[in-house]
Amino acid sequence: MSSPQRWAAGVEYLGSRFCGWQAQAGLSTVQQAVELALSAVADHPLQVQAAGRTDAGVHAFQQVIHFDSPAARTPYAWLLGCNSRLPAEVSLRWVQGVSPAFHARHCALERSYRYVIHTGAARSALTHGRVAWHTRPLDASAMHDAAQCLVGEHDFSAFRDSECQSPTPVRDLRRICVRASGEFVVLDVTANAFLHHMVRNIAGTLLEVGQGRKTVSWVAGVLRGRARVAAGMTAEAAGLYFVGPVYPPEFALPPPPQPWFPLP
Amino acid sequence: MSSPQRWAAGVEYLGSRFCGWQAQAGLSTVQQAVELALSAVADHPLQVQAAGRTDAGVHAFQQVIHFDSPAARTPYAWLLGCNSRLPAEVSLRWVQGVSPAFHARHCALERSYRYVIHTGAARSALTHGRVAWHTRPLDASAMHDAAQCLVGEHDFSAFRDSECQSPTPVRDLRRICVRASGEFVVLDVTANAFLHHMVRNIAGTLLEVGQGRKTVSWVAGVLRGRARVAAGMTAEAAGLYFVGPVYPPEFALPPPPQPWFPLP
Repeated sequence: MSSPQRWAAGVEYLGSRFCGWQAQAGLSTVQQAVELALSAVADHPLQVQAAGRTDAGVHAFQQVIHFDSPAARTPYAWLLGCNSRLPAEVSLRWVQGVSPAFHARHCALERSYRYVIHTGAARSALTHGRVAWHTRPLDASAMHDAAQCLVGEHDFSAFRDSECQSPTPVRDLRRICVRASGEFVVLDVTANAFLHHMVRNIAGTLLEVGQGRKTVSWVAGVLRGRARVAAGMTAEAAGLYFVGPVYPPEFALPPPPQPWFPLP
Repeated sequence: MSSPQRWAAGVEYLGSRFCGWQAQAGLSTVQQAVELALSAVADHPLQVQAAGRTDAGVHAFQQVIHFDSPAARTPYAWLLGCNSRLPAEVSLRWVQGVSPAFHARHCALERSYRYVIHTGAARSALTHGRVAWHTRPLDASAMHDAAQCLVGEHDFSAFRDSECQSPTPVRDLRRICVRASGEFVVLDVTANAFLHHMVRNIAGTLLEVGQGRKTVSWVAGVLRGRARVAAGMTAEAAGLYFVGPVYPPEFALPPPPQPWFPLP
């Protein structure tokens, strides 16, 4: 044992079999799996803080966590020891010592998510649990155009879950892009932070436009109206990936990875 | 009931939980799952013929099968009826009526496979069971150069499993390409047909070159020597995908899909 050291780690996971990120008594969550593995390596119980919570069924290319431990371990010892104990659907991709000033949630400057939709008359076995599935084609170009009104600092009440605990509905949405590639439609979005269900509610709203049920200009009205009932449905969890957070350069942490599914 | 009709279908599957393609008593195979689902839709027992067998743990973007049935069903009825009965890891992507002259195995002009390797010090949760994993970087460019000597009609005895039942070890390898993209190395190969374990033995041999344990010119000597013991190990099944067969244009069947994992 030595004086406590703060560590940061990148966590990749397939969320299909988990009841979301956050630890909850009696439920299998990613946070509990990670804490159990890290505690075994540390040889003492420890808790982690994460950049963002994800819902049941949501995946992560790179969740970022921090934890404190007085155990003398190298980054490589944390990495291998933890990965050998974690279930196959969860892995640490890197572990790095950080200053005590680092906080995985509070220090994040922005966060990126990807939402993946598979379009095809027949379901796809290889993407089961990893995409939202729509049997009809979508107009990705219209979805992209409709999404651009969301860029900037806005009151996102229209895209906020009723159980959202944030003190403010205002978020700064930096970039949003919708592209089609083969049978896939991919939505990439970056903001300083997100409200509860915000990405899935935006996806569900853009799906109305993509299906031709609403016009491109309808989305701006939904945003301005600030009423959740006016927006689209909450799109299914399986299509959502937390790509990762970005931190100030002084912490020298790895940037969010380039997501490889279903296109770079 | 009407007179028998021959049908072709494209089958996508994640092979991880199956004991390969081919039906075997007492084992869970993809062929059995497909025959069970089609028989239920047809309301009579039926067997299918496939373009190629795949080993346990091997996946398919598009296996192609044919089967005969006197049951009056539309292509859409076969598709939806079968997909609703198949496990999530198997799906039909299309079903199409074909002439009685069509045979999924005998009519295939060529077949394509993809082999995917993930390189990284830490394992990746999202690719578990879907890639071969190497902890050290690979020289994909050297692997590509080394592979080019395999193009053409050759005796591939050096890359043939001892249990291979083919009457001849000669195959016509049309194209082979190795590329790196992020943490992935992707091997794409097309031949008129493949010997048992041929792609995995080629991948294992090129891995020797990629790791710098053998030179680029070593592979040509292995091919010429025709001795299996001189080649590399059989690379693990999890990295292998059957991309699909190509048929003469008169059958008007869908071409092999553009694989989307881990790059187009």
